[in-house]
Amino acid sequence: MRKAARWLRDTLSYEFRDPALFELALTHRSSSGQSNERLEFLGDAVLDFVISDYVYRAIPNADEGDLSRLRSSLVKDATLAELARDLDLGQHLILGGGEQKSGGHRRGSILADAVEALFGAVYLDAGYDAARAVVERVYAGRLESLPDPRELRDPKTRLQEWLQGRGLERPDYELLGVSGKAHRQHFEVRCTVAQIEATTDGAGPSRRKAEQQAAERMLAELEEAGS
Amino acid sequence: MRKAARWLRDTLSYEFRDPALFELALTHRSSSGQSNERLEFLGDAVLDFVISDYVYRAIPNADEGDLSRLRSSLVKDATLAELARDLDLGQHLILGGGEQKSGGHRRGSILADAVEALFGAVYLDAGYDAARAVVERVYAGRLESLPDPRELRDPKTRLQEWLQGRGLERPDYELLGVSGKAHRQHFEVRCTVAQIEATTDGAGPSRRKAEQQAAERMLAELEEAGS
Repeated sequence: MRKAARWLRDTLSYEFRDPALFELALTHRSSSGQSNERLEFLGDAVLDFVISDYVYRAIPNADEGDLSRLRSSLVKDATLAELARDLDLGQHLILGGGEQKSGGHRRGSILADAVEALFGAVYLDAGYDAARAVVERVYAGRLESLPDPRELRDPKTRLQEWLQGRGLERPDYELLGVSGKAHRQHFEVRCTVAQIEATTDGAGPSRRKAEQQAAERMLAELEEAGS
Repeated sequence: MRKAARWLRDTLSYEFRDPALFELALTHRSSSGQSNERLEFLGDAVLDFVISDYVYRAIPNADEGDLSRLRSSLVKDATLAELARDLDLGQHLILGGGEQKSGGHRRGSILADAVEALFGAVYLDAGYDAARAVVERVYAGRLESLPDPRELRDPKTRLQEWLQGRGLERPDYELLGVSGKAHRQHFEVRCTVAQIEATTDGAGPSRRKAEQQAAERMLAELEEAGS
């Protein structure tokens, strides 16, 4: 654990009062004995709160839908796993033999869980302000350049807003066909903006996903034509 | 707002430094101008964190699945609405004319949102410790007598655990039939525990829900027979 403690001090400027908490945060359930799952539960709530507070203050004019999408994009597992990789956290994980052999050190879900557990452990070790400081260090790059929350809206919403902003009618979505068996269906959908005679097609494992793809393509075409 | 301020002081021992925050927390989006939706976003995260911290410490031997179910049961809208009703918060809501006429003061979702917004407002007004104190006052009765988290597990899980604990095989779920059109389907399912020749039926708008109902009924029968 000395190597891990040095890594934590160097990358996140934090030293645990109680090293057992740090060790627990790094311990995956594949290892014998206690694991980081309870800490992950707590750390998930710490993270949500720190990020909610941050985006609430950072974007005073964003509505709650945009704030929620922004928060989701920051706290989702894929983002956490990326942050863990940037920090090179994987090398310090404590895994069972099987996970070690099968590359658990690099697995996104294991990395994401360990980052959350780390936040929970710092909170128990030194309280909320310390945990917030560590979250903000881990997220430093992301918080400095927050994405435009409008870009996080789903394509159907963005398409509708784009059309509305130009006084155009809503798009029309038509189901072209469904194929495949019950649990592996494939949907094909056509998006039409009749006023400007534009159509795009989309496909996906659900009607909704197919529509989103068609809307995304329509947006790309319209934005290209408009620029 | 004076009446509302007195109510808040008397029921939750809190006085706002900034009364405008309190007013905003009570303002539903049906009213003109700014509403409590952003505060609700923030307060939701405050609440999640306070409750997570509480249950984490209160039940040291609960696993993260039980902790999550316990938290969900405490922070879900139905619980928040009940708490708001116990506090008689509805009378202080600021609603638009339409919502006022149609009984918005009593609507669960509006009440739940306002409670969350209140937590967010207290956090902005006086910081985390003050917000936690208010959450704990609102939740006092619930936190003193936490439900057994095992009772919050879904019926299929509880049935399986019940059978396993007695060395019995897993139950079998069989789809008896589906009726109704695509978006209003009705599923009927039979649960069988062959070793003890027990069967129960369940129905619902999804296969999962029908199975849960059949499992719930099986559990009730087994527990009655066992007691």
